[in-house]
Amino acid sequence: MQPDLSGLTALEVNLATRTSLGDALTRSARMFGSRTAIADRGRSITYRELDAAAESVGRSLLESGLSHQQPVAMLMGNSWQFVATYFACAKAGLVAMPVNVVLAPEDIAWILNDSGTTTVVADAAFGPLLEKILPGLAEVKSVILVGAGPAASTGGVSTRNWEDLALREPAGPLEVLVEDRDAAQCLYTSGTTSRPKGVLASHTAVFVAGLTNALMQGASWGGEHATLVNVLPMFHTTGLNTLVLPTLMIGGTVVLPGPFDPGAVLDAIEAHRATHVMFLPIMYRALVGTQAAAARDLSSVRLCIYAMAPMPDTLLDQVDEAFPNASVILGSGQTEVVPATVLQWPEHRHTKANSWGPPVPTVEVQIMDNDGTLLPAGESGEIVYRGPHVSSGYWNNADANRAAFAHGWFHSGDVGHLDEDGVVWFTDRLKDIIKSGGENVSSVEVERVVSAAPGVQECSVVGLPDERWGEAVCAVVVAADATTAPAELEAQVIAHAKQHLAGFKVPKRVIVVDELPKTATGKARKHELRAGLSR
Amino acid sequence: MQPDLSGLTALEVNLATRTSLGDALTRSARMFGSRTAIADRGRSITYRELDAAAESVGRSLLESGLSHQQPVAMLMGNSWQFVATYFACAKAGLVAMPVNVVLAPEDIAWILNDSGTTTVVADAAFGPLLEKILPGLAEVKSVILVGAGPAASTGGVSTRNWEDLALREPAGPLEVLVEDRDAAQCLYTSGTTSRPKGVLASHTAVFVAGLTNALMQGASWGGEHATLVNVLPMFHTTGLNTLVLPTLMIGGTVVLPGPFDPGAVLDAIEAHRATHVMFLPIMYRALVGTQAAAARDLSSVRLCIYAMAPMPDTLLDQVDEAFPNASVILGSGQTEVVPATVLQWPEHRHTKANSWGPPVPTVEVQIMDNDGTLLPAGESGEIVYRGPHVSSGYWNNADANRAAFAHGWFHSGDVGHLDEDGVVWFTDRLKDIIKSGGENVSSVEVERVVSAAPGVQECSVVGLPDERWGEAVCAVVVAADATTAPAELEAQVIAHAKQHLAGFKVPKRVIVVDELPKTATGKARKHELRAGLSR
Repeated sequence: MQPDLSGLTALEVNLATRTSLGDALTRSARMFGSRTAIADRGRSITYRELDAAAESVGRSLLESGLSHQQPVAMLMGNSWQFVATYFACAKAGLVAMPVNVVLAPEDIAWILNDSGTTTVVADAAFGPLLEKILPGLAEVKSVILVGAGPAASTGGVSTRNWEDLALREPAGPLEVLVEDRDAAQCLYTSGTTSRPKGVLASHTAVFVAGLTNALMQGASWGGEHATLVNVLPMFHTTGLNTLVLPTLMIGGTVVLPGPFDPGAVLDAIEAHRATHVMFLPIMYRALVGTQAAAARDLSSVRLCIYAMAPMPDTLLDQVDEAFPNASVILGSGQTEVVPATVLQWPEHRHTKANSWGPPVPTVEVQIMDNDGTLLPAGESGEIVYRGPHVSSGYWNNADANRAAFAHGWFHSGDVGHLDEDGVVWFTDRLKDIIKSGGENVSSVEVERVVSAAPGVQECSVVGLPDERWGEAVCAVVVAADATTAPAELEAQVIAHAKQHLAGFKVPKRVIVVDELPKTATGKARKHELRAGLSR
Repeated sequence: MQPDLSGLTALEVNLATRTSLGDALTRSARMFGSRTAIADRGRSITYRELDAAAESVGRSLLESGLSHQQPVAMLMGNSWQFVATYFACAKAGLVAMPVNVVLAPEDIAWILNDSGTTTVVADAAFGPLLEKILPGLAEVKSVILVGAGPAASTGGVSTRNWEDLALREPAGPLEVLVEDRDAAQCLYTSGTTSRPKGVLASHTAVFVAGLTNALMQGASWGGEHATLVNVLPMFHTTGLNTLVLPTLMIGGTVVLPGPFDPGAVLDAIEAHRATHVMFLPIMYRALVGTQAAAARDLSSVRLCIYAMAPMPDTLLDQVDEAFPNASVILGSGQTEVVPATVLQWPEHRHTKANSWGPPVPTVEVQIMDNDGTLLPAGESGEIVYRGPHVSSGYWNNADANRAAFAHGWFHSGDVGHLDEDGVVWFTDRLKDIIKSGGENVSSVEVERVVSAAPGVQECSVVGLPDERWGEAVCAVVVAADATTAPAELEAQVIAHAKQHLAGFKVPKRVIVVDELPKTATGKARKHELRAGLSR
């Protein structure tokens, strides 16, 4: 049964019924025009201003010759202009492509070429980086610089000022055909073991993810004002899809205090009476340390989300104390599926603290073996997902898509199991599992133990090629006190590991380093570690 | 940018990424298998049982020859079998078509013929009705009776027992291709002024509506258990899409105590510790009275929703008192767009009590004049909508669709205005506005005043053809005390109206009746009233 729509244009029906991310901003701006959408380091941008800038930039992008579903690369830090550019693409039917700006220049160049990017929007601060890689970017024809001032230029390529595009006279709403399953964004994974992959997410996917996040965060439409303080990078799905977009979809305020600084973050929470925050465990540690020193009023915060790593019980308790009115929950997911699970139910707080919690209502999780058979509770295999906000696939990578969607499930590349309550227990990334002496060792499990050893600040565990063991469990550790002798620290780690781990899981080697190589979201770059240590 | 999915089947990608209502039940059943999904008059159906029945019935429907997107008519009262049949259709890619069973038999026959229905699922109680209309239903080839016992038959047409289909051995999950914008349901409007129209809603529409309702109802996924007591008919979008489906999408429990009876409803709330309820104002009035006479513990209820009519302040206060921990909110919408608005913010409780409140986050509302121009705040015109859960159109009715989607907005057929806060003020149905002496009179406004006149229990106001006025404002009233003389009541109504209304709005005629003709959701059938009185 489909309706007979003869006599109507495709656009008429599309405008009235579509799932479009651009429309979400339109709606928030219609209801909350004079409310602050984004407080960007002291500058307040109202919903009306944000929406007007998005419409103007979107219109300019189309006028400059970009056509439906072409990508617009964004080399931008967290800013209100980032958000406006993202929504400009959504409204124009273009694909927003925020790029991880902490990647190496050659990786960024690779991404721009792989995606066929013709237009780059960049903060002026990234102008020099761009000039450096431009000679290798055959298809880039247009650069738009944010905050560059009147003399904006990038050698040889047409360069415009973002401000000139954003602050044009309004010309009526930008209404072009955008289909539910058109791509809204393309986020390249950091590609620790292979070339980066462009993860496509449709308007439906980002929209459903946003509603799901709002629901899981207990947010409410406008009435009880949701105020988020965000320091996580918006070129990553967590900052973008879990935090900033859901907040704007329900008329809340996003506070961007700049790069993470404990004092500045606490100031921002207090000044804006933030209701929702999300940090990495290591950031929480810094915050509760600062908080102990200078008691702030953090009573407005109702929800503290963490991710990327489990939080030890002692730290959880400290966060509870510092944020007296907040629930503390763990979110998990990956660029291709976010949110996937949330550890949020009070009864699991202590009994399942090392799990990922149950899947969110819009995701089904199963465990699959190598043959595509689904496994019962308790059995270990690859974590696979289904749901309306699962990525529609990787750009320009049919091989990856065939692997990702085999047997009608999205393959996460993570290993784990489900328990009888449907709660997901993550073991390790498939590629990080260490195969040692015929046994599989979860690097994550060893990390949890080694991190708690005396004298250890943080650690990463990898398998290194070994004639006897196949792979040898190796712990790379950073000392809490730089004056500790490496041999002493090594002995402490081994002693602690022997107490808490089966013999075959105890590290065969302990290597002390000053610093771990990390991704933008604080995960250790294990591929880099392995490569460096195997030499 | 679309991904290259070569080497994959359409079904593999569809299963992993689609927006499907059937999958929503699968997910709830996976997480909460042993939890009660539906408590149907003393019988508890777990999620596992509900999902298994839906899969079995869906499989049987496909095996009996129904093909993708064919309708399945449902002549059913509220029951767990209704819900299982609805989800059976969703899982099988068929269109669930619950029919308003209080319509006249000829209307039901018209609907079955218009939709091209070949298969009808009916409660045994509607067997006689079905036998009566079957001779006029050329296309119906199969009837499935619920609760008919072994001798199920419907003269001449293949008849099976629902129970035989539902309780088959499981045969693995039912996994067929269902697209996001396939129709999930078709609900025929009651057609007060024209033939009934089949309103199609896609999987995306019903799913987004469900998430939006869950968000607006402050529901949470599983943890804090959502328990709904529902007496509204599920063949209507309110019972189905606002109440039952959102509750099941988030793992809550639906309690069906049977037809509305104040004592039984209060018993059910107390016994099940209900968290959410929704009733018509007239039902709240009865509940408040019964509660006053014999108090139950209603402290579990957090949300009291009402709809279809405003509630007077005194009744609102009584509901507050009877449900001490509940917020009281008004929902509005129509079969084609639900939810549309929710009056929920505390600051509007008294200042905007006669409004419909602001639009929900997934809907944009505007006011349009006859030429398709959007009007500014304060100006009156047709209420028009946009959003992902707007109906995809009317079945088999291109004329209605052309009118409904003209100018890229869905036309509600309602007249009203927006205020400066974006709150929607409903004036009247376009077709119920009374044109009297060159003035437009809102029947709704006159009803509000006449309802509050001494001696009046309820009323409906219509315009009747009149030589002098064009249309004359006519109040049809039911006396609170049947012994009041009609002339006396008429005088009281006129006196009260003169006190509270401009002269041209005061009824020219007052007609006392024993009972008002009503739709299944308690709205007066004005078309019928007008027809009866104009004779």
